[in-house]
Amino acid sequence: MGEFELINRYFASAHCAVHGEGEGVALGIGDDCALLDLPPGEQLAVSTDTLVAGVHFPAVCDPKLLGQRCLAVAVSDLAAMGATAIGFTLALTLPDVSHDWLEEFSAGLSRMAHRCRMSLIGGDTTRGPLSITVTVFGRVPTGQALRRTGAQPGDLLYVGGSLGKAAGALPLVLGQRQAPPAVAAPLLAHYWAPMPQLTLGALLRGHATAALDISDGLLADCGHIAKASGVALEVNLAQVPVSPEVEAFLGREAAVQAALAGGDDYILAFTAPPDALTHLAHFGFIQVYPIGRVLQGQGVSLRDAHGQDITPRQRGYQHFREIP
Amino acid sequence: MGEFELINRYFASAHCAVHGEGEGVALGIGDDCALLDLPPGEQLAVSTDTLVAGVHFPAVCDPKLLGQRCLAVAVSDLAAMGATAIGFTLALTLPDVSHDWLEEFSAGLSRMAHRCRMSLIGGDTTRGPLSITVTVFGRVPTGQALRRTGAQPGDLLYVGGSLGKAAGALPLVLGQRQAPPAVAAPLLAHYWAPMPQLTLGALLRGHATAALDISDGLLADCGHIAKASGVALEVNLAQVPVSPEVEAFLGREAAVQAALAGGDDYILAFTAPPDALTHLAHFGFIQVYPIGRVLQGQGVSLRDAHGQDITPRQRGYQHFREIP
Repeated sequence: MGEFELINRYFASAHCAVHGEGEGVALGIGDDCALLDLPPGEQLAVSTDTLVAGVHFPAVCDPKLLGQRCLAVAVSDLAAMGATAIGFTLALTLPDVSHDWLEEFSAGLSRMAHRCRMSLIGGDTTRGPLSITVTVFGRVPTGQALRRTGAQPGDLLYVGGSLGKAAGALPLVLGQRQAPPAVAAPLLAHYWAPMPQLTLGALLRGHATAALDISDGLLADCGHIAKASGVALEVNLAQVPVSPEVEAFLGREAAVQAALAGGDDYILAFTAPPDALTHLAHFGFIQVYPIGRVLQGQGVSLRDAHGQDITPRQRGYQHFREIP
Repeated sequence: MGEFELINRYFASAHCAVHGEGEGVALGIGDDCALLDLPPGEQLAVSTDTLVAGVHFPAVCDPKLLGQRCLAVAVSDLAAMGATAIGFTLALTLPDVSHDWLEEFSAGLSRMAHRCRMSLIGGDTTRGPLSITVTVFGRVPTGQALRRTGAQPGDLLYVGGSLGKAAGALPLVLGQRQAPPAVAAPLLAHYWAPMPQLTLGALLRGHATAALDISDGLLADCGHIAKASGVALEVNLAQVPVSPEVEAFLGREAAVQAALAGGDDYILAFTAPPDALTHLAHFGFIQVYPIGRVLQGQGVSLRDAHGQDITPRQRGYQHFREIP
């Protein structure tokens, strides 16, 4: 079976399930390129993410969950820019062609595409060690994208949800530990299908001064904002929303560690002047947490309830990380 | 060394060497997404290609040449749509971090980016078996992209250059044969740095009725046009421009085989009404070759000088091909 047949057969569903060649997609799969239209006054936002078997996910895993996760991880970068999702390309490298695997994988991909209201617009299928590269496309009003560079002393620091679920889920994902379904289910769901915070990102446009999605761990990612904006960030541990599910599963200390340094949460972290986010109160389903503030200086510090500096040396995991 | 440092250090040159954040690139590497601007009345063209070590290129090869080739192969799809190149993202999976390898690879990438007048706008670096996914972005006036679907009975069939060089170069690339430098150099140059026919593609807008770039082999790719357009294509063997370099190296029969069925040439094949291409005469450096015609019906046939049907059964190589 050739490349085109593969792509057409298994991934047409991810394409059609959403809005076909509507809304920004002028030409989808099947020609040399896909074609996208941008409304006047908007810019295209682009991001690429690769997931490699044995590095970013266990070599043996549910292909449906993997399909959800590989798209969600990439779309989270669109959310972090305040962009609206349009479409994505998929470069899929497979050791062999398993019809069952492709069916499941494309079902998961399609499900996440549907949730993010975006279409598969093209791709490439090659033989090799299992690896998935997703490139996502979104649109954002010109000049309104949320960058990492605008944090100002006096701003507050926020996160868009509780933290640590993905790191807390790892022992379950790797089969190292077991937990009752009530504990395991929400953690596994967050790990395999983190929901990109597209709505929150869009609502932050024109209000937040800097934003990103937490993929390397809260403190490490706050370091990226601090460096890009040329400011210092102070995180108050008592305000950090630690996942209660992880606390129930692994205990307080490990849950705090997961919230501060665990990667893969794909929750937004952002800065905004005090009172800049009052409009969010109109959206009852959106909840954000102030966790610190922006100061003159550089770097990230962590403070306890008494204002004591308790900054750990290891702030997150860098790339080239291995799943043990 | 972390992901961002890697990307910034080694690939900044590919970014800066060209036109930085000018011409369509509003925001390059370093934030969650890159941002592209599109002039009013233009569409964005997007294509993704993956090259895997041991499948699409020898596992041991010159990283500078590999850098050139992985970008050229992807950009060729922009040429085939008649698009002007803007930028690209790079997803690079590496077994380990070798500074020498990255220096050389980025130098090759930068060179091809410069030749195509485009910028690296983002990427992802991961650990794993060597694999490269490039996603390219171009712009094309709305509605003028060259698709595969418009070939009409009565049109002529053309190619944009001599064929078979990449397949003819394979024995040299794989070290299976040797040749004098005068023979080897142009073949290896074409294999490792095929020059995407961006200028020809742009000049065909509004004149050609269908187009693609030859990656699977002439006859196989003509089959793609025939199928997409719902027509038959007839190729006259006597008119096919067989690479004289390959003929000198491998003899007439093997050279013809390489021209008809060899992949990876990245020369444009296109259809146009008779006399539709007279404007190309003003561009002395552009040479195109009529090689056949479009008829009612379906499929691709090959004719000898006497009009005899000599269509081979095997029309090219499909994907999932292995370099032996």
